[in-house]
Amino acid sequence: MYNVVKNNFIKEAHELAVISSSIEALEEQHLDRVNLGQHVLAEFFECDSNILNNIDKVEKFMVDAALECGATIVQKCFHMFNPYGVSGVVIISESHLAIHTWPELGYAAVDLFTCGTKCDPKVAYEFLKKMFNSKKASFTELKRGIIDRETLKLAEQPFEVAEQFEE
Amino acid sequence: MYNVVKNNFIKEAHELAVISSSIEALEEQHLDRVNLGQHVLAEFFECDSNILNNIDKVEKFMVDAALECGATIVQKCFHMFNPYGVSGVVIISESHLAIHTWPELGYAAVDLFTCGTKCDPKVAYEFLKKMFNSKKASFTELKRGIIDRETLKLAEQPFEVAEQFEE
Repeated sequence: MYNVVKNNFIKEAHELAVISSSIEALEEQHLDRVNLGQHVLAEFFECDSNILNNIDKVEKFMVDAALECGATIVQKCFHMFNPYGVSGVVIISESHLAIHTWPELGYAAVDLFTCGTKCDPKVAYEFLKKMFNSKKASFTELKRGIIDRETLKLAEQPFEVAEQFEE
Repeated sequence: MYNVVKNNFIKEAHELAVISSSIEALEEQHLDRVNLGQHVLAEFFECDSNILNNIDKVEKFMVDAALECGATIVQKCFHMFNPYGVSGVVIISESHLAIHTWPELGYAAVDLFTCGTKCDPKVAYEFLKKMFNSKKASFTELKRGIIDRETLKLAEQPFEVAEQFEE
């Protein structure tokens, strides 16, 4: 029983800490709602196929993209498929960066998921677009885990689209 | 020069193979367009916080989710944050499964990205919802890498939303 009460107390303390930092973020940004994570879905078309099929280069560029946008790298794992294509993930303190390449189509599907305000996933997007020599790309930013200012709780709803563009 | 011609030939042969298998898929499904990947963005609310803060359990459930939906596991990496929260990824032959948990909020943001028709990411979604004891969840399925039947090329456009629901 003591443990239940203790755990509930710890849980509530944690919740208060999270909500409190979220409120600060809300106040700083003058927003009604704040989101725990930004998730960028990037589609890179017309890329250099030789780069997309080179696991060392793909891994290096993904790691560099994480560093470029100010993330802290925690772990990484990459895999080369036979006969072609690379899949890989960089886990960062602020969430993750993931990639799947189709060198035969010059296409890469990339996810850039960051939390907090330290990292800007757009910086990683611009960096990778350049490194892959992508001639055409699209960028969609989703807000995940939205906290409502009125209730000070997670708004239990699907993500929201914050921004989308093609170039 | 020979290498350039040879590489172009190989590239074209690869493209033809991909397009050819895509056409077969289109014909089988009687669809005008087919997508390379299905990407499910799942939000799990009101989960069991003790599970979301247990790296062994989160890893086990993510691996089991991959197996449940018929995926082949290639690599995995998981990380426990201090003081709480787990991030992790399972790379599968068919793409990846990723998770970030906020135990203090009972919330997990999960990505289930699969390619081909072998795996059904909805099976993984239902499995994880049950394992995390999530009382409320949402599911959005995106189509990524859309191939147009008329041009037999990648439609160079952002993803499309295939399905979305809250429960």
